[in-house]
Amino acid sequence: MLNHTLLSAERNIHDTSTTLNAPSTGLKIATDQPWSVSMQRLRGGVSDGVDVVTINNGRMKLDLLPTRGMGVWRGDVDGVPLHWVSPVSNPVHPSWVDPMRRGGIGWLDGFNELICRCGLGWHGAPANEVRRDAAGKIVSEEFLPLHGRIANLPAHDVQVSISEENGGLISVTGVVDEGCLFGGRLRLTSTLRTQPGSSRFTVEDVVTNLGSAPAESEMLYHCNIGRPFLGDGATFHSASTEVAPRNARAVEGLSMWNIYQGPTPGYTEQVYFSKPVHDERGYGVGVLCDPDCERAFVVRFDTSTLPWFTLWKCTQADQDGYVTGLEPGSSFPNPRAFERTNGRVIQLAPGASVTFRLEFETVLGRDSVRKLLDEVTAMQVAVARTIHPAPLPTWCAP
Amino acid sequence: MLNHTLLSAERNIHDTSTTLNAPSTGLKIATDQPWSVSMQRLRGGVSDGVDVVTINNGRMKLDLLPTRGMGVWRGDVDGVPLHWVSPVSNPVHPSWVDPMRRGGIGWLDGFNELICRCGLGWHGAPANEVRRDAAGKIVSEEFLPLHGRIANLPAHDVQVSISEENGGLISVTGVVDEGCLFGGRLRLTSTLRTQPGSSRFTVEDVVTNLGSAPAESEMLYHCNIGRPFLGDGATFHSASTEVAPRNARAVEGLSMWNIYQGPTPGYTEQVYFSKPVHDERGYGVGVLCDPDCERAFVVRFDTSTLPWFTLWKCTQADQDGYVTGLEPGSSFPNPRAFERTNGRVIQLAPGASVTFRLEFETVLGRDSVRKLLDEVTAMQVAVARTIHPAPLPTWCAP
Amino acid sequence: MLNHTLLSAERNIHDTSTTLNAPSTGLKIATDQPWSVSMQRLRGGVSDGVDVVTINNGRMKLDLLPTRGMGVWRGDVDGVPLHWVSPVSNPVHPSWVDPMRRGGIGWLDGFNELICRCGLGWHGAPANEVRRDAAGKIVSEEFLPLHGRIANLPAHDVQVSISEENGGLISVTGVVDEGCLFGGRLRLTSTLRTQPGSSRFTVEDVVTNLGSAPAESEMLYHCNIGRPFLGDGATFHSASTEVAPRNARAVEGLSMWNIYQGPTPGYTEQVYFSKPVHDERGYGVGVLCDPDCERAFVVRFDTSTLPWFTLWKCTQADQDGYVTGLEPGSSFPNPRAFERTNGRVIQLAPGASVTFRLEFETVLGRDSVRKLLDEVTAMQVAVARTIHPAPLPTWCAP
Repeated sequence: MLNHTLLSAERNIHDTSTTLNAPSTGLKIATDQPWSVSMQRLRGGVSDGVDVVTINNGRMKLDLLPTRGMGVWRGDVDGVPLHWVSPVSNPVHPSWVDPMRRGGIGWLDGFNELICRCGLGWHGAPANEVRRDAAGKIVSEEFLPLHGRIANLPAHDVQVSISEENGGLISVTGVVDEGCLFGGRLRLTSTLRTQPGSSRFTVEDVVTNLGSAPAESEMLYHCNIGRPFLGDGATFHSASTEVAPRNARAVEGLSMWNIYQGPTPGYTEQVYFSKPVHDERGYGVGVLCDPDCERAFVVRFDTSTLPWFTLWKCTQADQDGYVTGLEPGSSFPNPRAFERTNGRVIQLAPGASVTFRLEFETVLGRDSVRKLLDEVTAMQVAVARTIHPAPLPTWCAP
Repeated sequence: MLNHTLLSAERNIHDTSTTLNAPSTGLKIATDQPWSVSMQRLRGGVSDGVDVVTINNGRMKLDLLPTRGMGVWRGDVDGVPLHWVSPVSNPVHPSWVDPMRRGGIGWLDGFNELICRCGLGWHGAPANEVRRDAAGKIVSEEFLPLHGRIANLPAHDVQVSISEENGGLISVTGVVDEGCLFGGRLRLTSTLRTQPGSSRFTVEDVVTNLGSAPAESEMLYHCNIGRPFLGDGATFHSASTEVAPRNARAVEGLSMWNIYQGPTPGYTEQVYFSKPVHDERGYGVGVLCDPDCERAFVVRFDTSTLPWFTLWKCTQADQDGYVTGLEPGSSFPNPRAFERTNGRVIQLAPGASVTFRLEFETVLGRDSVRKLLDEVTAMQVAVARTIHPAPLPTWCAP
Repeated sequence: MLNHTLLSAERNIHDTSTTLNAPSTGLKIATDQPWSVSMQRLRGGVSDGVDVVTINNGRMKLDLLPTRGMGVWRGDVDGVPLHWVSPVSNPVHPSWVDPMRRGGIGWLDGFNELICRCGLGWHGAPANEVRRDAAGKIVSEEFLPLHGRIANLPAHDVQVSISEENGGLISVTGVVDEGCLFGGRLRLTSTLRTQPGSSRFTVEDVVTNLGSAPAESEMLYHCNIGRPFLGDGATFHSASTEVAPRNARAVEGLSMWNIYQGPTPGYTEQVYFSKPVHDERGYGVGVLCDPDCERAFVVRFDTSTLPWFTLWKCTQADQDGYVTGLEPGSSFPNPRAFERTNGRVIQLAPGASVTFRLEFETVLGRDSVRKLLDEVTAMQVAVARTIHPAPLPTWCAP
């Protein structure tokens, strides 16, 4: 077992010169995959100062962004890209992002990752949150811009851990703080793991309330995929008991809610909320399958803390960002006050924490994809699914 | 012909070690001028992280700011400075600029360049832009702060190209993107060119709509000059068919609209709008001539895309920023909604682009200045000019 | 006498490689204390890009933050830490601070220093400042967020000066500009001085109006101390003629206004305003004494320009930030309009300046602490003190 610090604000460590691999570490992992882990700092444009941790397990390459809340910028499995092409081409240093821009949707100025967290205190549509006491008097008022702060906060500590056991395991852990005086204190400790030669990786996120008062938390994993997984006729597969369109626009496409169009200029996003079921391990599943059933991107998620799922269809023109989002969440991306009213906001006692677990897999080859879809179908047919014809009042903010 | 990449966010190139010059490149330009091009990164204060590309053509030195939308910080011709002394002394990294500060004029926190672009989506006075459908219902609402985003967006790509032909040509091209998901996608590709030994340089800017939907664009070249060109009795020369004061304050100085005062504590800015005429090449002209007619700074501009001209008189005290702005524009610096109503906003179809061309020249010596002024006078006397006694309702937002 | 430039944006100097000490400078100071001065740049998290100037006088170590308006991050005397533990762990680069966040208290996102200036144009609670002419018509309107800009503006020039005279003197001077076009132009020139082997340091700040128009200025020294000085039963000692609770919450604790509780979850801050008296040198005094009377932290301040004193009690839970603030000020931290009405805002003529002088001392050992407290008591008993039972209308904004 090897432990290595790539970044520590506390100890002023910022290591962009080390490449951890078999020769440099002397680790004897039973694999012929040329694995490696290293960090670089980007220069130029809005990427200036962004750190990228690259994990190469020999088969799969992942670029992590400590500077952007440990998001996963992009990946590559057997040469197949895991990404989408945002109008914002390169990773954006948060100093270029003003969340309050454009009425509170400035978050979009920095949005181009494969996996982007929304949280920790809140996520979802921008809204003015007014709290009142029992008598109806305003106690506090705060404008909460789109999708919270975590994607634009930097890790102050990044550790790599590499184990030789059982074919090896590469882990990268980042710690990101969201808090300030009189503003609560939430900490994300995020660990991404993969094995040499694997097409899978896992994410285990612990969110801890370091403050002395109870705190609220919301988390949404905005997992965004474009071509070659997305395309005209691509399909979404999942297992759930209920599905509802978010609004009138989503109702328009309800009959095709899990089938994708090709790039469509002028397309307006359509969003579907659902309540996933879980397998015997407690995991729900969402799959994006390409039109030829040759490639699939899978996200599995622990429904004990991520009991809700949002499907974001954004099949606009390629140059505008042709993409879909598979989004397991602790809640739906409505304003927090609405989610609170409907009992979906996490309450963390002082010192308490909540753990989110996700598994990501890229499945290549028709037979493997078929097997995967059969598995998801089996999960779905085991339960009844209601597709609501209109937004559910308890799910969808008006 | 030599091509060299100084900066590429895509390829993570950031070259502050190369100086391109005759010895280092081996280029054989027929000149005895010791030309060079190099880039440095500033450190400290609000300039920390700002890149400066310095072009020295042997006679003229120009400092370009890739980090600030390819603005031209300052220049020097035969030892005569092209600049003004802003209360903000050094180039400002955009991370220190909050455009929303002070009711939407935070742009001024970073303003100290010789040539500063205002655009790409809009420029002009801050305003809340409300769009309504035919029935009068509000479709969108967005606060647009002063002078747009482009001056505070960084180039993600900077290329130098040096040709040996015809006495040589030094070109620096920067690419700056302004866009985000659901926010359009405009790209500025800006090329500045100069010849070894020349006191001239040209700017050719292409603004392209990379999105799938039609887009609006506005551009204003805020060309700002102070001493030794500006001074008590300095004069502005141009050729136009109409001139109008922007507001009541400008009316006060109308009889002296093209003559400058010395530094005047308590002076409030005066702005004059005009419709320039063009020469046989299609170029309009604006000249700032010093009180002794020994030095002149000239801007020429292609009126096919820059049909309007704004003269900004800001002859306040030296320590507050004694300066005048010669500002060719695709529109006047009014709120965009006003410009749209009056047909001055550029409409770009998907994939379409608009090209802005400008030429800058420093003329030194009484005879040369006299010849220049005669040329401008000849242009003016060839057409009638109306000086409107009051703001024009179609030119000047109330 | 040695002078050394650590940072100059003007000359593009940023020296993190030099350590100034006896061997490297050859200075012959009559001390056996291993003094040194050096600068480092932090990397990672929200500290990325923050410069820290460390002064070690052999007995006391101080970390200064040029990037944060020459604040003093933390110190150490004989191994006793001078600091507090903010929920924000490390120094925060101002590019992460949006003063407008949370209704104008975003300043708190970067707050963790031992000594943090609030100013220069204003400080105090966030407020919309409306100015009217004699007829009551609105002349200007500006939202002024919490505690002004200076803590989030960087020094563009940092000089070290070391004298061999009289046992030696180490001085560090930083220059910070607060201004922009049409926004005034205030300059802070701040010098911190200490002698080898001393437990004292002084701060001399000159604020100059570089603009051509009269300008207003407010300054508050937010001196923040936690354990081991603060604790259950710690006491505050001062000499003043009047003390008033800021609001109803402060009234609740009035009988104990100068005694501290231990960490108290759910505690809401209590603030006391006072009018200090001065000694024969013209200095007022504030002392935080630990519960055992073994350690005291003292601030002395020139009451000719810092005539008001604010005591901030914030004895909330440790993890939320257990701290007290000793805050000499040119005014109270009310909205500037209120302070103006009550004659406490500094008016600076063009070119004029105001100088603020403070002395900080750490006193260790029961006898020394006792002597210090006796001295303060003597100052107090020499004058009558009125403790107002309720907020004073001229001191406390409603």
